[in-house]
Amino acid sequence: MSTTKTINLKNRPAGKPELNDFEFTTSEISELQEGEVLVNTKYVSVDPYLRGRMSDAPSYIPPFELNKPIVSGIIAEVVESKNSNFSKGDHVSGMLEWKGTQVAKGDDLLKVDPDKASLSAYLGVLGMTGLTAYLGLTEIGKPKKGETLLVSGAAGAVGSVVGQIGKILGLRVVGIAGTDEKVELLKAKFGFDEGINYNTTKNMNEAIAIACPDGVDVYFDNVGGDISEAVLFNINKFSRTINCGAISVYNNTELPKSISVQPFLVKKSSSMQGFVVFDYADKHPAGIKQLTEWLNQDKLSYSETIVEGFENIPQAFLDLFEGKNKGKMVVKV
Amino acid sequence: MSTTKTINLKNRPAGKPELNDFEFTTSEISELQEGEVLVNTKYVSVDPYLRGRMSDAPSYIPPFELNKPIVSGIIAEVVESKNSNFSKGDHVSGMLEWKGTQVAKGDDLLKVDPDKASLSAYLGVLGMTGLTAYLGLTEIGKPKKGETLLVSGAAGAVGSVVGQIGKILGLRVVGIAGTDEKVELLKAKFGFDEGINYNTTKNMNEAIAIACPDGVDVYFDNVGGDISEAVLFNINKFSRTINCGAISVYNNTELPKSISVQPFLVKKSSSMQGFVVFDYADKHPAGIKQLTEWLNQDKLSYSETIVEGFENIPQAFLDLFEGKNKGKMVVKV
Repeated sequence: MSTTKTINLKNRPAGKPELNDFEFTTSEISELQEGEVLVNTKYVSVDPYLRGRMSDAPSYIPPFELNKPIVSGIIAEVVESKNSNFSKGDHVSGMLEWKGTQVAKGDDLLKVDPDKASLSAYLGVLGMTGLTAYLGLTEIGKPKKGETLLVSGAAGAVGSVVGQIGKILGLRVVGIAGTDEKVELLKAKFGFDEGINYNTTKNMNEAIAIACPDGVDVYFDNVGGDISEAVLFNINKFSRTINCGAISVYNNTELPKSISVQPFLVKKSSSMQGFVVFDYADKHPAGIKQLTEWLNQDKLSYSETIVEGFENIPQAFLDLFEGKNKGKMVVKV
Repeated sequence: MSTTKTINLKNRPAGKPELNDFEFTTSEISELQEGEVLVNTKYVSVDPYLRGRMSDAPSYIPPFELNKPIVSGIIAEVVESKNSNFSKGDHVSGMLEWKGTQVAKGDDLLKVDPDKASLSAYLGVLGMTGLTAYLGLTEIGKPKKGETLLVSGAAGAVGSVVGQIGKILGLRVVGIAGTDEKVELLKAKFGFDEGINYNTTKNMNEAIAIACPDGVDVYFDNVGGDISEAVLFNINKFSRTINCGAISVYNNTELPKSISVQPFLVKKSSSMQGFVVFDYADKHPAGIKQLTEWLNQDKLSYSETIVEGFENIPQAFLDLFEGKNKGKMVVKV
């Protein structure tokens, strides 16, 4: 039986994850059964939400097991098939293990077309991050033409797509990001109307008020923490917040405190709602279709940070928390 | 021109309101014009939300003006009418000034029937507080039979009706209140399944977990603050919080801090939404009809604390913040 390189979760991180929390090892490749395919990993998605699965606190998906491989979105190439839906040479996407080669059930895989978009796009703008942006904004945000959309983590994989969809839908779009370079990218590449660099802005509350003179109708929140606190002072009556992530506090070991949101919500008849793309699986096919259409019409741009090498997967994941990526962080194997 | 006793807002309260923030005075009664009615105040509603209107911070309704009368829900008797819809002796409800006698536009008044319910009920279970309970729970909470409903401020005017409607709709209902007597009342009079006294409970998080063994699906939040923080640890996937009030923090002069809600909302795909009954005016008539039906079927009980005397209106208002009322606080003039 042959073996393959594998990355296991070694420790549950306390606070910020470290390289030491991952273990490089080898594992056996099981024998191919009827209905299964043997695939080689091509691109690996690293995402902030994986941090949640490394803890054993209850969450929306079960935690990773210790000394078992990490699982994330992966694009792979079929090298052998015992499933009539897949042939050697096909490219597929699926939630797969961090391994060089593995056996997967055909039912868990989706064929992707390398002629319609680059393979890595299926992990980003045409994958989970694009669907998160599209479904979060439309299903929870319910934006109306002419409203103001504010996006935090705006230069990230999700945020940059949220802003562009906002423009397609006729909104005024303002993005918050952490460097001048990213803010420039928001306006130049992604068509945002305004951008705010939270690292150089002393009074975020005021900066948001200036960038959003009519107030904030929809807030797509990827970060939580202090930035989201400042947004509260600028929300409009009947505003909607999509709580998509809280990357600013994922590594906190103590529960973060912030200004109580309740009085703001009461005063403004405003809503906040947690959003996880996995809850909307029935809307994924239509979402991918819409996103592909916009991409092919050149209405959507995307940024990727592509890191090379299987051995760099853990570091690429850690770099997410330092904001080192522009757009979707992907590892090419 | 005759005059009438009047209570004005003298100062905008800093923190907890005091008697000194109100001024007893007299004002002139204007001459009755076509379409108007002259009314004598019978019952005055005092409500926590009035605290908001005493500040000049932006809110869902404009602030009271200094040296002008306070306005709240009032039941009055028509003593003279130049409006064909009203006759001498009719009883009406409306948002009226804290005065003994006043002239009102007929358009702003609703006739109430003293044969169907006591006059004070039209300020409570058949008035704004009943509608707040009914519309908040059904429109925002969207409860499903068999789910668990948790209510804070449960012995209050709104909370006690929320719990009873919860039982009518087939929910498990748990209430949080501040004395053993109130907790007993929840179970004995209002049919709650369980009650928690937050003043004698050391670990609210744990107490909620015990009272809600299947977790919390709908949280009707009247209080905010520490209690709502403890609820976060017990919310279920897809749970809904109705943010109806935050009485625990209305008198804070600094913005209160609490555990960040965002990570909880993300993990649980959970929502929080501010609710103000004034936003649902189109649903008030149907709501009153449903509440009257339940009341007449003996499916709804209500508590009132009736204070006697015009001169005690400000003190009755202040007592709300000490939890001295059981159910709706009303002043009989």
